[in-house]
Amino acid sequence: MKFTSYVLDVLTDSVFPARIAIADGVFKEIMPIQVSGDDELDVEGLLLPGFIDSHIHIESTMLTPGQFAKIAVRHGTTSVVCDPHEIANVCGLDGIEFMIENASQVPFNFYFTAPSCVPATSFETSGAVLDSDDIEYLLQKDEIVALGEMMNFPGVINGDEEVIKKLELARQYKKPIDGHAPLLSGKELDKYLEQYIVTDHECSNFDEAIEKKQKGMKIMVRDGSSAKNMEGLFDFSQRIEHLKNQDSFGIMPREVLERRIHSPIFDFIVSDDKHPNDLIKGHLNKSVKKAAELGVDIIKAIEMVTINPAAHYGLDAGSVTTGAKADFIIIDNLVDFNVLKTYVGGECVFDGENVLFDVPEIEAENSIDATEKTAQDFEIRFDGDECEVNVIECFNGELLTNKVSATLEVKEGIIQPDTSGDILKIAVVERYGKNHVANAFIKGFGLKKGAIASSVAHDSHNIIVVGCSADMMARAVNKIIENKGGFSIVGPELDESLPLPIAGLMSNEDAFEVARKLDVLHNMSGELGCMLDSPFMTMAFMALLVIPFLKLSDLGLFDGDAFEFIDVVGN
Amino acid sequence: MKFTSYVLDVLTDSVFPARIAIADGVFKEIMPIQVSGDDELDVEGLLLPGFIDSHIHIESTMLTPGQFAKIAVRHGTTSVVCDPHEIANVCGLDGIEFMIENASQVPFNFYFTAPSCVPATSFETSGAVLDSDDIEYLLQKDEIVALGEMMNFPGVINGDEEVIKKLELARQYKKPIDGHAPLLSGKELDKYLEQYIVTDHECSNFDEAIEKKQKGMKIMVRDGSSAKNMEGLFDFSQRIEHLKNQDSFGIMPREVLERRIHSPIFDFIVSDDKHPNDLIKGHLNKSVKKAAELGVDIIKAIEMVTINPAAHYGLDAGSVTTGAKADFIIIDNLVDFNVLKTYVGGECVFDGENVLFDVPEIEAENSIDATEKTAQDFEIRFDGDECEVNVIECFNGELLTNKVSATLEVKEGIIQPDTSGDILKIAVVERYGKNHVANAFIKGFGLKKGAIASSVAHDSHNIIVVGCSADMMARAVNKIIENKGGFSIVGPELDESLPLPIAGLMSNEDAFEVARKLDVLHNMSGELGCMLDSPFMTMAFMALLVIPFLKLSDLGLFDGDAFEFIDVVGN
Repeated sequence: MKFTSYVLDVLTDSVFPARIAIADGVFKEIMPIQVSGDDELDVEGLLLPGFIDSHIHIESTMLTPGQFAKIAVRHGTTSVVCDPHEIANVCGLDGIEFMIENASQVPFNFYFTAPSCVPATSFETSGAVLDSDDIEYLLQKDEIVALGEMMNFPGVINGDEEVIKKLELARQYKKPIDGHAPLLSGKELDKYLEQYIVTDHECSNFDEAIEKKQKGMKIMVRDGSSAKNMEGLFDFSQRIEHLKNQDSFGIMPREVLERRIHSPIFDFIVSDDKHPNDLIKGHLNKSVKKAAELGVDIIKAIEMVTINPAAHYGLDAGSVTTGAKADFIIIDNLVDFNVLKTYVGGECVFDGENVLFDVPEIEAENSIDATEKTAQDFEIRFDGDECEVNVIECFNGELLTNKVSATLEVKEGIIQPDTSGDILKIAVVERYGKNHVANAFIKGFGLKKGAIASSVAHDSHNIIVVGCSADMMARAVNKIIENKGGFSIVGPELDESLPLPIAGLMSNEDAFEVARKLDVLHNMSGELGCMLDSPFMTMAFMALLVIPFLKLSDLGLFDGDAFEFIDVVGN
Repeated sequence: MKFTSYVLDVLTDSVFPARIAIADGVFKEIMPIQVSGDDELDVEGLLLPGFIDSHIHIESTMLTPGQFAKIAVRHGTTSVVCDPHEIANVCGLDGIEFMIENASQVPFNFYFTAPSCVPATSFETSGAVLDSDDIEYLLQKDEIVALGEMMNFPGVINGDEEVIKKLELARQYKKPIDGHAPLLSGKELDKYLEQYIVTDHECSNFDEAIEKKQKGMKIMVRDGSSAKNMEGLFDFSQRIEHLKNQDSFGIMPREVLERRIHSPIFDFIVSDDKHPNDLIKGHLNKSVKKAAELGVDIIKAIEMVTINPAAHYGLDAGSVTTGAKADFIIIDNLVDFNVLKTYVGGECVFDGENVLFDVPEIEAENSIDATEKTAQDFEIRFDGDECEVNVIECFNGELLTNKVSATLEVKEGIIQPDTSGDILKIAVVERYGKNHVANAFIKGFGLKKGAIASSVAHDSHNIIVVGCSADMMARAVNKIIENKGGFSIVGPELDESLPLPIAGLMSNEDAFEVARKLDVLHNMSGELGCMLDSPFMTMAFMALLVIPFLKLSDLGLFDGDAFEFIDVVGN
């Protein structure tokens, strides 16, 4: 294939017209050409390297790798570094190998990291444990380019033997280590960094990012569905404030200072978690455009999703250069930033209208090992007329919860929720064959009737359910069991679900269909009185014990502050 | 050690005041502090990471690693990536191990590359051959951080088996490969780059550097004693010209374009070859200051000698950050750029006046295996009255020569030089025990009497001599043999030398003493009529066969164009 195009070259920070030749999937020639002032080049647009998302959990899109690729190429993404942390918690090594195998069947570059923290804690039942031997097995694979995000920062700081061994293995296999250290700073951060943990995607404010950057970390600016950190980290008023000190020394020429402001000092833009209804609207293309609108030099923003991640992880991607894999996109211009075409390995995979490859259907094994539930499974018994209980208080769009208390009525020995006071029931149903159920109370969902349930519940992905009655909860959970996983919503005259039969995390359908069904569920939850924007997402984090303050695992109510179980009854 | 200083942080591209704590040779804390507008901080100056020269041949300084370190720290250099190519040609692996051992005895960071091209050609006698087994032995060493500059680009392009094996070994040991490909472009460059050769320090013009950069190479901008490429590569009129195309597409906002101009797109500043009389005046400190004067953003220039090389070669150096080795300097300000103090591993090694470490004296083994010469060794016999000869024409400061011809008188069967016409005699004396001598004629030195000789003669470092008579040449060469190597100059009433007893390349003395003696020799050469600025340097390249057009090895006169030997007599 030979054609002429303007090229945005991230290696020389420039745009030029060039003759391009591609064969055997690689760029054979990028030959800059001279255009005289009056000539109009007959070209489609501007050629850029395909975008790289250097930190994403594919499972959060609820799509298989194949279906993810199909929607991602519409937005100009051609590579991802993904951490199969979710499926690893459910299916262990088999799950990771399924992801690698499925990914290999589509024209898209999937690179993987070895999930470093499976399970997330010892206070829950997960589907698998990945020990340092498993990590070594994974690190030997070519598809694995790094050790996945080391979330267990207390383990690192306290020198937990198994944690340290995993980190040492990554260094031994010369693979970089991804970090995850929200708000870690000072001496504790120093200790964390002694283990050569290089990246962080958890920075939520400028000062945090600056400290980590000064200590040598590479900063991933996150623009996901849950966490949106671009506004905070690309805040140029803070950047200017930060640079002001330089003036006091009087040695930095002012024009150097001013140029510097628009050059971001952070390294990558990533999505981390991207939900299907966001993903159908855009991916890194949207993030780059937004970064430019926030004041970032657009070429620098593009470098954050091309050459920067490619150089860090050693990927054959991210630049348009002779000998490199011909992964590229054509956009209309740097302001509107519309993706006109996407190519992977020299083949057109998106022609502006259609995606030009098929995704194989998957025969999903059932990962849900749970018996049918009854209302009794969701009852908390108490001897008395009323009872004081500890309640999880959740907030729209937040992972953090509060611990509050409430006084509830007891009828026939069973503690009753208080729908009018928004004290609902929540339960986590073990789904790996042990069949126990942990019950508690939650405030913030606002459901007036019915229940919602999900097999997506970080990080162990047991079944989680919130509802107004034990009966409705049993119905919602049984729907999940019947569907081999997914989301369900039930009400007096209502029964709808989004099956996620692959590990209880992913659908076989495409992004548009999954997003459509999710919208239906969201609308129904509103009809039932729910006040949250994304009730299934919020619910999915109510079992994530590592984020305080009060959470629920299949083993009971967990105080993230004291890092121990507490009773539902009492205060 | 604890103190307060302004810090130039190359990781966040900024300057700020900070409290600094150092212990066990590393930065324990860099704590930014707030300074109110009126306060004057009581600090010495601005703290920067120590500079890294990412490509230098220490032997060219004529100093041992220890003595090199002693002068380099005065200029703020604390690390070098050095290619022991010269001593490897003389002494093979033993020479490299001597360098590593000597380097380890001073507080300075020496990193080495494995010399990839020893000998340079098969048309000369070298002291050693490094085959792929030797390279593998070297690549296993921690001190060796890369495969040294691959000068044999025809070998790479034509797939020479031994060359390809060395390149494969570097990849196998995950060590980067340095390049050396002057003016290579187009398909040949593509072929060269297929072997993952990453750096190039030979770019002499902007277009050459841009092509290499676009093809993925990292560009080392050279500011050495012989080759000075900064003016060419930091030529902002060319940069603007190069960026102008972007305007024609009308999509690059003008202010983005304008900011971009001062940001160099090249990667490192290196010295490659630095002679002692230059080195006493400055090193990278001078280069950075000059780059800024040429219009480069000063922080970007500093990054080219700190974080950029550190990241590329994976060195624990190049940034002022918690946990990093405390190699740093204090300068007065970013305009005058005077180095006030230098620290290596937290220890002060230069206090602004004195260097605070000693360098061990070396007992040099004699590397010159040559018998005393007589005038007869330097005579070319011819049967006739006059004779047409091929003459090497050299030029001040150039490595390239011309092939010219001259008609010379023959007396008593011996061809006579023509001192008035500046056709002098040149000879290369084998010094590895074979004791043969190759004689020819040279134009350009301008000597009216006497002779100069040297055991520094790239790349095999046989003894090279230029003179007005066979008698003088024998005297000059015998002085070299007596001194175990070095430079010598003889005249009717004149006899001076600079001994370089270590491999015939390096002195035991310090930079100031070597520079002083070299100045004496230069002045004397002027007294003898020599017109060249650096006659010993120019002479040292007359045996470097790979640079055309006419050169002389110990095996005879060599036509670099035809790549074959030719006769001295005839045309």
